[in-house]
Amino acid sequence: MAKLAGVSLACVSKYINNKPYVSKKTKLKIAKAIDDLDFKPSAIARSLVRKRTNNIGLIVLDITNPFHTQVIRGMEEYINENNLKYNLILEDIIDKKELGDKNIDSFIENRVAGILSTTDQISIKYLNYLKNIKLPIVFIGRFVDSIDIKVDYVTTNNFKGAYLMTDYLLKLGHENIGYITGPLDSRVVINRFNGYKKALKDSKMKVEERNIVIADDLTSENGFMAAKELLSSRSKLTAISCVSDFMAFGVIDYCYKNNIKIPDDISITGFDDVSFSSLNFINLTTVRQPIKKIGKKAMEIITKKIENEITENVEIAYDVEVIKRNSTRSL
Amino acid sequence: MAKLAGVSLACVSKYINNKPYVSKKTKLKIAKAIDDLDFKPSAIARSLVRKRTNNIGLIVLDITNPFHTQVIRGMEEYINENNLKYNLILEDIIDKKELGDKNIDSFIENRVAGILSTTDQISIKYLNYLKNIKLPIVFIGRFVDSIDIKVDYVTTNNFKGAYLMTDYLLKLGHENIGYITGPLDSRVVINRFNGYKKALKDSKMKVEERNIVIADDLTSENGFMAAKELLSSRSKLTAISCVSDFMAFGVIDYCYKNNIKIPDDISITGFDDVSFSSLNFINLTTVRQPIKKIGKKAMEIITKKIENEITENVEIAYDVEVIKRNSTRSL
Repeated sequence: MAKLAGVSLACVSKYINNKPYVSKKTKLKIAKAIDDLDFKPSAIARSLVRKRTNNIGLIVLDITNPFHTQVIRGMEEYINENNLKYNLILEDIIDKKELGDKNIDSFIENRVAGILSTTDQISIKYLNYLKNIKLPIVFIGRFVDSIDIKVDYVTTNNFKGAYLMTDYLLKLGHENIGYITGPLDSRVVINRFNGYKKALKDSKMKVEERNIVIADDLTSENGFMAAKELLSSRSKLTAISCVSDFMAFGVIDYCYKNNIKIPDDISITGFDDVSFSSLNFINLTTVRQPIKKIGKKAMEIITKKIENEITENVEIAYDVEVIKRNSTRSL
Repeated sequence: MAKLAGVSLACVSKYINNKPYVSKKTKLKIAKAIDDLDFKPSAIARSLVRKRTNNIGLIVLDITNPFHTQVIRGMEEYINENNLKYNLILEDIIDKKELGDKNIDSFIENRVAGILSTTDQISIKYLNYLKNIKLPIVFIGRFVDSIDIKVDYVTTNNFKGAYLMTDYLLKLGHENIGYITGPLDSRVVINRFNGYKKALKDSKMKVEERNIVIADDLTSENGFMAAKELLSSRSKLTAISCVSDFMAFGVIDYCYKNNIKIPDDISITGFDDVSFSSLNFINLTTVRQPIKKIGKKAMEIITKKIENEITENVEIAYDVEVIKRNSTRSL
């Protein structure tokens, strides 16, 4: 314990309790004593000095959605390109009811340095709490629309994307355009839905309730079920626009199974442009989001917030574009 | 500091240095003092008592391969179903050259409780080191074939899977069967290749070098390039067997792009049976591995090893089956 000579019990206690009034020199002395005795320099011991680890908590709502793996790829690329020492703690949310606050609790307990989230289903109470304990959080492809709190986010212009896509279908001559969406409990999902409705209204078309399916979640399985609902009986639809590519895959699946030809019998569109969508056997007309760039930017913001290189609120909505492929045709 | 009354400086020093000879009662006293003073009970403080965190390091070679997201889904399900407190630290390996030992270093520094790996590109030296420091590691869909060391693993009968698939193609009347594989630096990849070759030999067919492509990695992009190599000029192939579904997606992509009809012009097979493969517009004949079950079992083993509920070596190879879909036809 020679290394700790001159360090009082009170100091060590304060140190392990993360209390203030331990001088930086003493902190380093204690940390060094720990490091010297460990086989490997312990990130844990260091985290006690700094009150946090090098881990960043990542909440993903459905890791099997390829949008999320491409976002993660972007994050890892940012870490590698900048030689950063951060690790991602992954929480893959399966059941939506388990969402949000519970994961935040687990992250706080593990002293993460920051939180990245692909869901906005986190209560204002918890968002305020994170603000109070100065734990940064960045939303990915999601944002909070509240006058009570501001949360950093990276997303795209969702309203514009859905508006442009619906407008593209209208210009191709489609008049009966179905819409498949997930639950309307997130601003991003609502904005896409509003984009669809506004484009119809601007073209003097009616928004027909029977042409719209609001599914319980954004999986391809629910895309399949929604297509069944829209296409099974006396449907006049000539096009279906989906809130995401992953849901559109379920719609295409249903059409293949029931010998409904795409785009001859029905035009299908998605939103995201995940890498699968550009494969020639899928060839999905969709709204392109710069997915990897979103992941990279989110990682840049969270690490800079952690290092106090950015202190102001960051709100980024990248532009989108309609990618025209063979799942749509002119009538 | 009343809570620490009766605890000597030496004891606290030993405690933060993780040295032995601190009684359990004293350890708990110190841990409690830390817990009481923190806003949240600190997993970090507790990890100092136990010399490890509740984090499990997961090395994934290419998170964009849907095989891996389904494995992760299985892991998360095991954690949820058993109410466990473990977190996954994700390392998505992009460039294979960066692989293995470097990630292990980072995990050790962060005091993970165990390591799960979808790659076997970890040196024997490091595997021995992990054994010495009693840090459990489980390979997923991979295994080490060495007389020097035993590593726990969960995989399937890869040789049998590839053998059965090649045999199925032979029975359909195919005589010129191409094979696309990744690098032959892993036992699992080699075993699948051997299964293909053995099935040909057992049917008195020659293994033709020009029918085989060994790609740099297992991505769909390389599947596309390999298909180009095999199918571009004077190819007599009537079938191509791929080492994974993800590579097969690249092959199907190439065929669609070049108007080569599946299965009329060429039969295509994969290996894994990821969820995309059963979609009606892909409908890939493949070898089914119980992917989620592999993830669940790997998580079960690593957590039981961590808790010392299992001490012996665990080697699991689940059975496989050929799933016959519409990407293959009888000649």
